[in-house]
Formats: sequence, structure tokens, C-alpha cells
Amino acid sequence: MISLEKVRQRAEADARTNGCYLNPDQNFLKDLFEGLKVNEERYGYPSCPCRLATGKLDLDVDIICPCAYRDIDVSEYGCCYCALFVRKDVYEGKTSVGPIPERRPVYLQIRAYGSGGVPAEKQTEKLPETVTAPAKETVEVKRKAWYCRQCGYVCFREEPPYICPICKAKREMFAPLRISLDVQG
Amino acid sequence: MISLEKVRQRAEADARTNGCYLNPDQNFLKDLFEGLKVNEERYGYPSCPCRLATGKLDLDVDIICPCAYRDIDVSEYGCCYCALFVRKDVYEGKTSVGPIPERRPVYLQIRAYGSGGVPAEKQTEKLPETVTAPAKETVEVKRKAWYCRQCGYVCFREEPPYICPICKAKREMFAPLRISLDVQG
Amino acid sequence: MISLEKVRQRAEADARTNGCYLNPDQNFLKDLFEGLKVNEERYGYPSCPCRLATGKLDLDVDIICPCAYRDIDVSEYGCCYCALFVRKDVYEGKTSVGPIPERRPVYLQIRAYGSGGVPAEKQTEKLPETVTAPAKETVEVKRKAWYCRQCGYVCFREEPPYICPICKAKREMFAPLRISLDVQG
Repeated sequence: MISLEKVRQRAEADARTNGCYLNPDQNFLKDLFEGLKVNEERYGYPSCPCRLATGKLDLDVDIICPCAYRDIDVSEYGCCYCALFVRKDVYEGKTSVGPIPERRPVYLQIRAYGSGGVPAEKQTEKLPETVTAPAKETVEVKRKAWYCRQCGYVCFREEPPYICPICKAKREMFAPLRISLDVQG
Repeated sequence: MISLEKVRQRAEADARTNGCYLNPDQNFLKDLFEGLKVNEERYGYPSCPCRLATGKLDLDVDIICPCAYRDIDVSEYGCCYCALFVRKDVYEGKTSVGPIPERRPVYLQIRAYGSGGVPAEKQTEKLPETVTAPAKETVEVKRKAWYCRQCGYVCFREEPPYICPICKAKREMFAPLRISLDVQG
Repeated sequence: MISLEKVRQRAEADARTNGCYLNPDQNFLKDLFEGLKVNEERYGYPSCPCRLATGKLDLDVDIICPCAYRDIDVSEYGCCYCALFVRKDVYEGKTSVGPIPERRPVYLQIRAYGSGGVPAEKQTEKLPETVTAPAKETVEVKRKAWYCRQCGYVCFREEPPYICPICKAKREMFAPLRISLDVQG
């Protein structure tokens, strides 16, 4: 059991740490916190209240709140997909926001739900060769080490973040970290 | 020599970065900053003003401010062990806090002070096999690489953090990072 | 094309994440944002508006905003070299700031501009053996992995940061991360 208040406090700390704000609409917020609480009790992690989780961590990891799309959606659209987190100007009421398109790549949706769970018109996106749908039972997530060429931040993920959580550089600034061994005989 | 003002500024920047606040009681704060200043001048690092440091970095590293228990104590109890850092609702006076239990594991206390320095009734905690007390002279700290399965944050520590400093996931979300070599002959 | 408003929003998020503030002088800010916008459109990255970039990422990486000197300059002088980012007490008008000396090491300036681009009186600084000027065409940046002994933060850079972006420890707290292999025959 996790309390609603704990869910709120974690979101507040997270917003402060990552340069954004909570939606100022308290009733709206409360509904989202309820959703996060339900998901955390059901799955063991607070998956996004606006998306369908599978209950398998490796398939859901990009949609655990704060989701992998939060920073870039707040930056580009003024709020995240759920509108839980907002940009400063939106928080201050200077800018209003419209609907946020789903940024989650189709191949991750297919990996999670199978191709039957994703509308056909969206499946035109070219899939990586390693994805064959439905693959729920056999999926293997390949994490790699990445570093930000601007500030040096290192992370271990399937894909680099859209925005560096330390220096806010964009995704293109990340490069894979390779380990080379110098063995001499 | 470090000025009190510098100690305050560092704590302010740290609170803002990590999603918490400084205790609003200015006189109380000033005493803590005095303690941090004294410790930094004595040991070379600002160890916790509410705990006894050994002066050996490897034995004290978890109690350098912000200590390894700060984020989780602020999250769970509303403030850190010293009450230097507080949660938003505590900062705003909506919640009051009581005494904070010492979260530092007994084995780390024994490693630092020897078993004579830790009350007998606390020594019932099962110790890791590698800890034999008192071991002050021969201690070897074994750091490992960990990553957060939610956001990919990588760190190199004895144990993973209680809360991910980037995405606020809990400790259970961390896994050890292993390097595998694929050598073919 | 990047909008001025986007440049501002990124700087706001970055300040909030890293424990500092934007200069409260809005006209002054606007000029700096214009400079960042011009640089980003010219080079593909927002190099410091107060310094000369080469257009080669590896030579400019320490002067992409937020530059590698931002946190330490804000901490020590109350603002960064450009005065784009300021410390809390400066933001609140309690402290005023004077001119900020250029902290960028001379060897990096020579590596970027050649020795002709750096005043002779500054070239008395001892250069690392690997620097021969002008070396613009052949420069090779050697990044290494570093970790913060206080909090475990890992980064991959030429030199460790002046201040740990997670726990605010000073540069001396960083150590190189070495990978050891245990091969038995």
C-alpha cells in the first residue's frame, strides 16, 4: 500500500529535480495520483495512468512515471502525455496546451501488446529487425551504455534519453560507450 | 577555510537539485551550517553534523552531507536525520516532523567505530560475512556499478541509492551492471 | 530553426535542475538567448554566447551552454562567465557580482584556437605534454570514466566536473573508474 500523499510527494520532488512543475489543477492531479497508486499496487511500479501496462517490467519500463517521454514532451508541448507534469510557462498560466500526441514508438507498443493491440494505420512505421510481433513471451531487452558528449552523463538503457537529465542536451548529443581492451601477446 | 555563507549556498543548490528544501528555521539552520563548516575544515569533507565521523573518507562516505540516507528520510519522514533538509509540505508548515530514527546500517557503524562503539542491543542485526569488528585499519570498501532499470542512471557505490536521484525510483529498481566479454578463439 | 522561447525554456529547466537561477534582468537575458539561438543554428549546439566557438564539437564541448565552468562559477562568483545563470542570493538581489575571470584552461584555448589565438602572457601556464599548438586538425579528445566517491555519480569526460551535479561534492572527490579483468589461466 502506498498513500496518495506519498505519490504526490514523489511527483513534487521529481518535478523539482527535473526542471518542471506539477499541473496546477488540483482535482485533475488527484485523479492522476489515484491512477499511479492503483498501478503501483497492481504492478509494483507506478506505470503511467494514461497508458496500458503489461505488468512485465521490461516491457513497461519506458512508461513508468516519469516516463521516458516526459522531459521531451514537457519541453516541446508544454506538458507530458498525461498532463501531470507541465512547463514553467504553462504552470504560470501564460501558455495553454492542447492534446499531446503519443510519442511511444510503435515498435515498443507492438512488443508490449502484439500487433493486434496497435491500430493498423500506425503499423506502417518501419520496425527494427529484432522486433517480431507478438513477442510478449520471448522479448529480450538489450540495454547499452550511453554517454552525453556535452556533460559526460552516463546511462544504461535501450535508447539514449531524449533530453540529458543533467545538462538538457538533446538526444543527438548521446553516443554509445564502448569498452576497448588492449591485450598484448 | 570555508565560509558559512558558502556552506549555505551549497546546501541551497543541493536542495533545489534534489527536490527538497532547507529547514525554514534560520537559527536552527545556522547551527547545522556551523557544524558542517567545522567538519569540512577538520576532515576535508562536510560530514554530517549530527553524526561522529572517523576522518577516514571510505568509512565516512555515507555520512558526508547530503548523506546517503537524506533522500529516503526526507521522503519517508519529511526530513533528514539532522532536519537540515525537509520535504515540501514540511517546508510549507503543513506537516510537522518528529524524531528521525538512525537509518545507517549497524554494520557500517561497526566498521567505522568498532563493535565497542555501537550499543550491544543494536548488534543483533545480522552482519555481512565480510564485516568483522573492529576493522578500522583493514577495511576495504568494495564499490560496484549499479543502474536504475527505470531511467538508466549509472552509479558506482557499495550499495545502490535508496532513491534514484534522477527519476526517484526506489532502491529495488537498481540492478548490478555486469560487463561481459565475448572472446572467441 | 529554434525559437527564442525554446532557448529560454531550456535554460529555465536547466537552472531548476542544477540548483541555480536565471539572471533577473530580462533585457540582458534576451540578448544572451539571441546569442545562444544564433550559435545553435550555426553550429548545431548552443555554444556560450560570450566565447568564440570553433564549430568542431570536440573542441567546443566545454563551452556548450551550460558550460563546464557554470556550476563552479555560480558557486564561487555568484554567476557564470556570461552572467546568464546566477546564485540564489544574487537572484534575490542580496548580493551583486563583479566581472568573472575566464576559467577555461589555457591549454583548451590553445587546442581550439592555436597559440596565436591566446595572448602570450597567458601562455605561461604549463601545458599537458599531449598539447602541441596549433593542433586543430589532429586533436584527439581522450575521455575517461570518473565517479564521485561521495555519491557514486559516473560520467565520461576528459576531466571530472568541478562540482558533482548530483551531490555538489567538489572536483577532488572524483576518482577515475578503472575496469579490472580477472583472467585466470
